[in-house]
Amino acid sequence: MNHNVYSTLLTDLYQLTMMQGYFLQNKHQTMCVFDVFFRQRDKTHYCVFAGLSQLIDFIQNISFSKEDLKYLASTKLFDDKFLCALRNFRFEGDIDSVVEGEIIFPQQPIVKVHAPIWQAQFIETALLNIIGFQSLVASRASMCRQAAGDRTIVEFGLRRSHGSTAGLYASRASFIGGVDATSNVLAGQQFDIPIKGSMSHSYVLSFDTELEAFESYAKNYPNHCLLLLDTFDTLYSGLPNAIKVFDGLKASGYNPMGVRIDSGDLAYLSKKIRIELDKAGYEDTIIFASGDIDEFVIDALNSQNAKVDAFGIGGKLVTGDPNPIFGVVYKLSSIQVDDVMQPKLKISDTSQKTSNPGIKQLYRVYDSQGMAVADIIALQGEKFDDPFTLRHPTERHRTTKITNYTLRNLHQKIFEKGKLKIKIPDISKVQEYKRNELSKFWNEYKRIVNPHIYKVNLSDGLYDLKQKLIYQSKLFKQL
Amino acid sequence: MNHNVYSTLLTDLYQLTMMQGYFLQNKHQTMCVFDVFFRQRDKTHYCVFAGLSQLIDFIQNISFSKEDLKYLASTKLFDDKFLCALRNFRFEGDIDSVVEGEIIFPQQPIVKVHAPIWQAQFIETALLNIIGFQSLVASRASMCRQAAGDRTIVEFGLRRSHGSTAGLYASRASFIGGVDATSNVLAGQQFDIPIKGSMSHSYVLSFDTELEAFESYAKNYPNHCLLLLDTFDTLYSGLPNAIKVFDGLKASGYNPMGVRIDSGDLAYLSKKIRIELDKAGYEDTIIFASGDIDEFVIDALNSQNAKVDAFGIGGKLVTGDPNPIFGVVYKLSSIQVDDVMQPKLKISDTSQKTSNPGIKQLYRVYDSQGMAVADIIALQGEKFDDPFTLRHPTERHRTTKITNYTLRNLHQKIFEKGKLKIKIPDISKVQEYKRNELSKFWNEYKRIVNPHIYKVNLSDGLYDLKQKLIYQSKLFKQL
Repeated sequence: MNHNVYSTLLTDLYQLTMMQGYFLQNKHQTMCVFDVFFRQRDKTHYCVFAGLSQLIDFIQNISFSKEDLKYLASTKLFDDKFLCALRNFRFEGDIDSVVEGEIIFPQQPIVKVHAPIWQAQFIETALLNIIGFQSLVASRASMCRQAAGDRTIVEFGLRRSHGSTAGLYASRASFIGGVDATSNVLAGQQFDIPIKGSMSHSYVLSFDTELEAFESYAKNYPNHCLLLLDTFDTLYSGLPNAIKVFDGLKASGYNPMGVRIDSGDLAYLSKKIRIELDKAGYEDTIIFASGDIDEFVIDALNSQNAKVDAFGIGGKLVTGDPNPIFGVVYKLSSIQVDDVMQPKLKISDTSQKTSNPGIKQLYRVYDSQGMAVADIIALQGEKFDDPFTLRHPTERHRTTKITNYTLRNLHQKIFEKGKLKIKIPDISKVQEYKRNELSKFWNEYKRIVNPHIYKVNLSDGLYDLKQKLIYQSKLFKQL
Repeated sequence: MNHNVYSTLLTDLYQLTMMQGYFLQNKHQTMCVFDVFFRQRDKTHYCVFAGLSQLIDFIQNISFSKEDLKYLASTKLFDDKFLCALRNFRFEGDIDSVVEGEIIFPQQPIVKVHAPIWQAQFIETALLNIIGFQSLVASRASMCRQAAGDRTIVEFGLRRSHGSTAGLYASRASFIGGVDATSNVLAGQQFDIPIKGSMSHSYVLSFDTELEAFESYAKNYPNHCLLLLDTFDTLYSGLPNAIKVFDGLKASGYNPMGVRIDSGDLAYLSKKIRIELDKAGYEDTIIFASGDIDEFVIDALNSQNAKVDAFGIGGKLVTGDPNPIFGVVYKLSSIQVDDVMQPKLKISDTSQKTSNPGIKQLYRVYDSQGMAVADIIALQGEKFDDPFTLRHPTERHRTTKITNYTLRNLHQKIFEKGKLKIKIPDISKVQEYKRNELSKFWNEYKRIVNPHIYKVNLSDGLYDLKQKLIYQSKLFKQL
């Protein structure tokens, strides 16, 4: 089974009805540009881009099978000529994208699709599904990584993820975002991610006593002996039994690994456990905490000086709980009229939701120390001066002049006329890229709670174009 | 591609390390019983069970391939004898479960697995993943159905769902919960669910003017002409253009379908639009609303007498936003000791989290009018008197005597010694079952906000056993 295949029919019906609309009017080959961007999330600020590899797989495998076309014909919504044209339907356009692991912010064109309109329209649903989900999880994992510092974090979320592919790709995205390992065996096999696991309450319960269960586990895994303490009572049953078993292991020449706590007050329990383990001579054992952990819990445990050495992070990470929707959208920004690309914008009553028109580039500005200063959304081909004037995104009279800067184009050409132009990097390289790029941002932008807002500016060219089009739209209401 | 196949390696590593633990001590064939139940959700009360068909597929397709075993060997965690035993590993136990579409409540044993312990342990992760996700979505869909009454609701969530299988099975679960149709073409093909869709903002933007876009759409879909009004301005641009196009359709002998609004204040806009459409002679057209809709929004629109005839429901439905985790758990309740099944319980500091021991049955009590009165978790084989005394779940001195009742065993035998015992029903039958069963509950239990709590009682036999085991556990803390 190829887990990377995303079925061609897994799309919204309106994509197909619109495609037929374009086709029947013979405007389906009209070139257009769509931008992918996400809207403000409530608790995090920066996000981490992920899912590009699976998007590439989807694009390369678009193909309507005979059964697919038979099903579409059965709906009586489609013309034979259109269905016939779908037989050889492929994506033949260009896609520019930020790389996986890139640090991204709201409103930025993170992916740019330049293609015949029926093709660009078709890929919308899958693109948003794939990119939205993996970026959701990678972003959350990155926040967990920050909160945990250099302590081990393991992703445990498979049982809480939304079905099988969600489980597999949540593990992948978590790794990109910065977790050290996963409990997910298939993700270990498919993506070469380290896998970890110990025991559950049912293992303990399946023996007559907790002590027997611990002894059995220690016998089978003397080098990986991590004992779960809270089946009966963490401090009064689990911990003394664990110490007894550790004594036995030590006597046989093994180093016990440590203990896991999965319920109760983790701050209090971890401190009590640390004292007892140290007293018993097990200063080198770890305390592994799990159970409803996320970046906020880790942050709170830090501030209470909890003695937790490693974290298992499950449902909240893989579902994004309580914010499971990564609000990524796909908006038309340009369309070919005669032989010229004409900028388009969707106007909204809330000015934040009015889209940015035209074919755009995304840049990151670094200062002379290599630290990120601001990102800029500009028109394609727009030139910048040195010194360069940064303008505040909404209060444009607030400016900062910068000299000695470097400017990086964040877009990479992924597909050109339907041909893949990049080599897909190993996932460990993606994780490393993310870690390295994030280190170029001041900690104030990365705070778990109430981060300083990193500026994403509009260039003068883009700002002027947007204002002109809003004015030209002549939407003056009459009451 | 078979979308129903859930890979065998898609499991938590600890299932395999525990299985090996059982195997190496030759206790892997020990019979045991695990219960599946869910914990209280914060905003809904009753839930709808879904996912059994996919669980069945998973169980029937468990098989470690050569590549799987090679990967496991590469981790250096496993003994050759154990890996060798996995070659022919199958599920050979019994599974009892409530049927898909069943109305379920917290703490109830909705699935019961009776099998050799290594097999029962192995299926945990996939079972929780499959059942948890589909029940999450089916439950949410049922709440949306209630709020919408007999108006049309369409599931639109594919782009927001967590990957490809989440998209597919969210559509399936939504249909079980009560939606009328989906935008998801693959779900239409795979499950024979009606599919629906019209146009997006990009379709409108791809034309020089909104009017041209509407005219083009009407020409292509004269019988399904639903026009999206909010690309520029709903009342001042979209609506008058739609009426112009409807006039043309009417002149050609077609009946326009209606309009869609996707932003703005839906209560206000729908009332204004209804007035104008009626004035223009289009009393039969519908107003279709979409954009961040869920049961709470529908409920609020109802109380404002909004003029919405149909709803498109997307991300909140398919992700469960803001509560994306269906807290379903899998707990050991009995294990074979010599030749006797011995009840087990996991004690927790919070008494609500202390599990129910023993092999159990789940019953629903109906009164003489056929209305559901309470559910009862009892020990297997426990007898009930007539008149029968219902006891309040926590305040056991509060009792109700009932005569003329009927008692239904909610469990059905799904697998017996690994053999499938049921025929999987069509999804439309499942939807019908759910609708019919839910009609047996008073509306007070089904309120969207602050529902009356339906009672799930423990039988005397189960209650006494639980108290005895808690007492026997001798967990008297010393400070």
